[in-house]
Amino acid sequence: MPAGAATKAEPAGREFFKTRTVAEALAGFRPERRTRAEQVPLGTALRRVTAEPVIAPHPLPGFARSTVDGYAVRAADTYGASEGLPGYLTVTGAVRMGAAPDVTVTPGSAVSMPTGGAIPPGADAVVMIEYTAEAIPGITGPGTIEVVRPVAPGEGIVRADEDAAEGEELIHNGRVLRPQDLAMLAAAGVTSVRVHARPVVTIFSTGDEVVPPETQALKPGQVRDATASALAALVADAGGTPVHGGIVSDDPGALERALRRALQESDLIVVSAGSSVGTRDETANAVAALGPPGIWCHGLAIKPGKPTLLAECGAGPGTPGIPVIGLPGNPRSALVVFRLIGLPLIRLVGGCTAAPPEPSARAVLSRDLASATGRLDVVQVTVADGVATPLFGVSALLSVLTDADGYIVIPEEATGLDAGTEVTVTLYA
Amino acid sequence: MPAGAATKAEPAGREFFKTRTVAEALAGFRPERRTRAEQVPLGTALRRVTAEPVIAPHPLPGFARSTVDGYAVRAADTYGASEGLPGYLTVTGAVRMGAAPDVTVTPGSAVSMPTGGAIPPGADAVVMIEYTAEAIPGITGPGTIEVVRPVAPGEGIVRADEDAAEGEELIHNGRVLRPQDLAMLAAAGVTSVRVHARPVVTIFSTGDEVVPPETQALKPGQVRDATASALAALVADAGGTPVHGGIVSDDPGALERALRRALQESDLIVVSAGSSVGTRDETANAVAALGPPGIWCHGLAIKPGKPTLLAECGAGPGTPGIPVIGLPGNPRSALVVFRLIGLPLIRLVGGCTAAPPEPSARAVLSRDLASATGRLDVVQVTVADGVATPLFGVSALLSVLTDADGYIVIPEEATGLDAGTEVTVTLYA
Repeated sequence: MPAGAATKAEPAGREFFKTRTVAEALAGFRPERRTRAEQVPLGTALRRVTAEPVIAPHPLPGFARSTVDGYAVRAADTYGASEGLPGYLTVTGAVRMGAAPDVTVTPGSAVSMPTGGAIPPGADAVVMIEYTAEAIPGITGPGTIEVVRPVAPGEGIVRADEDAAEGEELIHNGRVLRPQDLAMLAAAGVTSVRVHARPVVTIFSTGDEVVPPETQALKPGQVRDATASALAALVADAGGTPVHGGIVSDDPGALERALRRALQESDLIVVSAGSSVGTRDETANAVAALGPPGIWCHGLAIKPGKPTLLAECGAGPGTPGIPVIGLPGNPRSALVVFRLIGLPLIRLVGGCTAAPPEPSARAVLSRDLASATGRLDVVQVTVADGVATPLFGVSALLSVLTDADGYIVIPEEATGLDAGTEVTVTLYA
Repeated sequence: MPAGAATKAEPAGREFFKTRTVAEALAGFRPERRTRAEQVPLGTALRRVTAEPVIAPHPLPGFARSTVDGYAVRAADTYGASEGLPGYLTVTGAVRMGAAPDVTVTPGSAVSMPTGGAIPPGADAVVMIEYTAEAIPGITGPGTIEVVRPVAPGEGIVRADEDAAEGEELIHNGRVLRPQDLAMLAAAGVTSVRVHARPVVTIFSTGDEVVPPETQALKPGQVRDATASALAALVADAGGTPVHGGIVSDDPGALERALRRALQESDLIVVSAGSSVGTRDETANAVAALGPPGIWCHGLAIKPGKPTLLAECGAGPGTPGIPVIGLPGNPRSALVVFRLIGLPLIRLVGGCTAAPPEPSARAVLSRDLASATGRLDVVQVTVADGVATPLFGVSALLSVLTDADGYIVIPEEATGLDAGTEVTVTLYA
């Protein structure tokens, strides 16, 4: 509260002790907390993070298969074959899908093959049906085919271990499972997979003006809690399980008690810390009271989002602390910072070693943008026809975020960007 | 089965009737089927598709708010103020967060304001606390502040309807709800939202060689169903509800019966159609038997994925048909085509009017790539240090997909791409 501010310097001094850049935070604030491993069925494993490498239990596909419809042959029998001078082979049988071949390919013989069928013994290649024809009945005798093109050994065949050798690492540790990874696991008969538990992220809102979204009639001065719903969505996007801690009143004791309870049940705690200096200080005090290792930074060189707090709390012997993120009270600032700093932390705690890519687009900036050096600026933009148009408005405005297609980042070292600069827009998916 | 192919021309002729390009399919195959609307709570609305515009029920934020910690003033009282010649104002009260102001700002007076507080009557600007100081007690009298910088009317204030006016469209119809959209809905007190039901997508696998993933000991010639798991994951990614229709044997009657049952309960049907020409023909026959409007194309000018079938079936008077996608039997081909053709169809049926952006990266191609004109080529690549390295291998190999970071598309009109070409890689998220 301004009433408590005796000099110009003091609030700024309290607020920005241990200010860090975004790059420092991403590289330096690396809590050790990791979620435990759990076994989940394949059907629920999409986007989960592997807690150990997945190994091929046997070679894949497991048997030599035809890649085409045609005839299994000895490649040597086709050498020199051409349209003008076809080779003639006797069809001695047919391979059925899903069954073991019951016939051997001997010199001068061929076996009819469907795509995906098991290569019979004796064959070392498959001739595509397009390069064969049934020879004329009555002249060459029944069951004889013409081959009009030679095949090399191995042609038309997938080797038994061509997709994976036994013991090969199918999926690395710490990876987010994508649809095709599930296909590979299914092919290998791996129907459950060891993954990191989803990080439980408890989300608190503070501020005496903040009321639940379901409040129909607002009293003068009240606003509904917009941040918590969006934070929960972002947590889910990053693979976490959001838990609504609720709205805590601007009372230091209440916040500290709520945080202390949440420490027991959370892998990460997020507090949208109120927008006035007073409530931000209260949050910092409550976080500091939670025990070691304590506050890592209070203040980030980013706009919007400067009053961000990062801490690790409640560590014990052999037990790493719980990361705590104190976000600015303005919903827009909070969401901008949480995307940049919070999502990577959730992935880290959830065991992810390679962050999945985000949608982006190259675009040309429509106008000059000013920026202060030493500070990362996040500017919301719309993108149309390759032009990125900045959206302006104070941090309190949510419409700047909902109108945006994405954002651009002006790095710490830049003093701004000129109109016409090609920029990378991170797009909101 | 090759045994049934009397001439070279026939299988190809049957297989590729009504071949279309990918561009034709995306633009021309636009089934009318849409899922019904349903009401869902905000907490489960992430990534759902709005079925009607969401309108602001009242202005947002709803009252004029301070954007800074400072003092509400009449701007005219600060004109000319400077460090050398401060203006003096009498503090007549303080606004508390979440409460209606109980004081009016009169000429020469100021009211202490927290960020986000409601602007009291009479004030038209807020001076940041950084530009004020408590005047020296004993000289100016208690409760007097110095203002060292002038403010313009409106400065430090968010208007009552600056985020949204009453009746303004907060979210357009047909949009995928993003985290920040949920924030806006929460701010507006919209705690449930009308969205399209998730499209129910029934997934069938065919092929006598295909056995469930949980089969531990494979018999010779058998492979586990890899495609269905990945298709289910892709369906979920696109906002659909996957339903496993199971593995249908290579028996035309069985497939037709299974499809007919699924027509009743699905918004879209996917069949991975077996890899041999014979099973693909059986799928086409079973789909054709399901009734109008019927097969739209059988054959896509794409590699891999040529033997793709698109159909709409089971339409009645006033009832649009159900889209049916017949995919190639090779898991890799099936997944490539389903990404390009299937995901947009699921979004269409699910009411989505603007597809969300996909991750992509610009990279330089490491080697020449050949391609046939008139055909779209999809090439899997790894990306490292800005270089895209193509992965090769027959369509049957899943490891090409699991090793890939993404894919590049060589358009129909190109005859290939030269090494060193800058390409856009669509990245797997």
